[in-house]
Amino acid sequence: MNDRIARLRNLLEEPLLVTNPVNVLYLTGLDSSNVALLVEPDRARLFTDFRYIESARAIEGVEAVQTMRSLIGWLAEELNGRFGFEASVLPWTFAEQLREGGLDLVPRTGLVEQLRAVKDEGELEAFRRACAITDRMFERLVSEVKFVGRRERDVAWDTTRLYHEEGADEPAFESIVGSGPTGALPHARAGDRVIESGELVVVDTGCRVGGYVSDYTRTLATGELDAELSEAYDVVLAAQQAGLEAIRAGVTGKDADATARAVIDGSPFAGAFGHGLGHGLGLDVHEAPRLSTESSDTFAAGNVVTVEPGVYLPGRFGIRIEDDVVVTDDGIENPVRFTKELVAVS
Amino acid sequence: MNDRIARLRNLLEEPLLVTNPVNVLYLTGLDSSNVALLVEPDRARLFTDFRYIESARAIEGVEAVQTMRSLIGWLAEELNGRFGFEASVLPWTFAEQLREGGLDLVPRTGLVEQLRAVKDEGELEAFRRACAITDRMFERLVSEVKFVGRRERDVAWDTTRLYHEEGADEPAFESIVGSGPTGALPHARAGDRVIESGELVVVDTGCRVGGYVSDYTRTLATGELDAELSEAYDVVLAAQQAGLEAIRAGVTGKDADATARAVIDGSPFAGAFGHGLGHGLGLDVHEAPRLSTESSDTFAAGNVVTVEPGVYLPGRFGIRIEDDVVVTDDGIENPVRFTKELVAVS
Repeated sequence: MNDRIARLRNLLEEPLLVTNPVNVLYLTGLDSSNVALLVEPDRARLFTDFRYIESARAIEGVEAVQTMRSLIGWLAEELNGRFGFEASVLPWTFAEQLREGGLDLVPRTGLVEQLRAVKDEGELEAFRRACAITDRMFERLVSEVKFVGRRERDVAWDTTRLYHEEGADEPAFESIVGSGPTGALPHARAGDRVIESGELVVVDTGCRVGGYVSDYTRTLATGELDAELSEAYDVVLAAQQAGLEAIRAGVTGKDADATARAVIDGSPFAGAFGHGLGHGLGLDVHEAPRLSTESSDTFAAGNVVTVEPGVYLPGRFGIRIEDDVVVTDDGIENPVRFTKELVAVS
Repeated sequence: MNDRIARLRNLLEEPLLVTNPVNVLYLTGLDSSNVALLVEPDRARLFTDFRYIESARAIEGVEAVQTMRSLIGWLAEELNGRFGFEASVLPWTFAEQLREGGLDLVPRTGLVEQLRAVKDEGELEAFRRACAITDRMFERLVSEVKFVGRRERDVAWDTTRLYHEEGADEPAFESIVGSGPTGALPHARAGDRVIESGELVVVDTGCRVGGYVSDYTRTLATGELDAELSEAYDVVLAAQQAGLEAIRAGVTGKDADATARAVIDGSPFAGAFGHGLGHGLGLDVHEAPRLSTESSDTFAAGNVVTVEPGVYLPGRFGIRIEDDVVVTDDGIENPVRFTKELVAVS
């Protein structure tokens, strides 16, 4: 942990007040919803309230300081001097409160996030375990679980149950189960719609193990597909393959996205892939780097990213296929084992 | 829903850009992680990206507008004029981005939150259903579930499973199961500690139904308690009773906290109640009003709040008892049915 704070120090022009709780978790191991870490050249102070102070005191290499529940207000009174702050995280009023308390604030963004984007071996091990459990969850989901005639939310519960049985710490997020036309809404929740036969079901799901998440999508079929659906599935699969092959250290998230997007835009489904190709994974389900038309990120070895093209025809159906991969110097490591062939469920 | 936007308009001195996704959910029913609602005198525009735009278009009374994934950057280019913004939510850089785009920004706080704090009958119905399910979950937890010899996290999983079986939409948050000395950490997660006989187990848990949450705590015993533990339990129970009796519309969150706190501070456990007495419940697990030494809130009829005093002796044990109540003009409605007598589990 102290190694992480040391690496952060190397990036700083002035002391940094870290207020994103996930960044504090990454740097210290403390999981608190009301916390700040002040990293100075010669020390690191960890501020939190009564509820978390005992846990904070057990952490080596930082000084734990108990604050009021109104943590930022307390810091505004107690601190002095010039500090960087996490400007893309800290709400506007809190920054003003610190300024009014006399602090000389320098807005900084992405400092801890750039460390978090490159995973170390321990982090990759947790990620690979999350993937192995997700693989087993999917194997059991398609072989043991009934789809047709049940509500999307019932299938979503089965993912939760199977993650538990396979040893995940928790689901990484509420599983998306989008059947038929619901699948055309890329972020629909699993709802009350009853799954019918002869349609596609988008299952977007992941789990957390040792802090780190997986995030897979597979599109399953509850019967024979017509020619258009089969073609759409093949297009998405080809786009994903192109995306996977485009990724290596030094390539940009924008170029990887463009490579996969070109496959869809060169098909009858041009324009039907409305979101980005993917995103980083780690302690958060969405983190750096991004793979999209708007991304300004460049891959580095040790990044963990999703690759998830899709085709969505509103009111009709959606298809998405998503793997999670580790970026290497000459390509990727893809730990995902569950098949991308179209799987029929009943 | 439109009634909520109309009531918000009555509070505004200038158009308000709502960027808290939960506030947008409250005002429009759209559940999106990347969203903004601009409430002007004569219209309301709902901005979101491709992933949610189909859902947004289905909402009556608002104009759905599709944006780039970088929603705030897009708004900075597209909008002009003078707007209020949610200053305690919007990160500092986003406010700067809007300013640099030429918007005349007025920081505003708590406008939607003050509407949300007073629940309407539909919201109260969802809350009462969440409480009824939590009651049944606790009844089954103490009668069907084994505690001694199992890990805290295994018992926490049983709460998740029982909520599902009883018809909750999802757990409201990750259940806290703190046994023995772990119970002295008010926000400890359920961990790998194996529960022993003859100790206290703090179970802090809730579920979500129709968007609205419950949040209960009970402290259970895995055997006979010594005299000190029994006395501590009685002190916490008396403090909670005093807190419940102090609450009605017009009373302050600070005074309710002080009333309960005085009971503990007049006992051998003076100083061992380190957090606030409670918080509002609704779409969020923590919302207005607050009950604490730092609170500046005054109760209104229709508030829903937790009442949760505790006694914590670091390294030894913790005790907390928590109900959820509706504030009325002359007191409270307490829908919680599960007993507050000390329950023995095995």
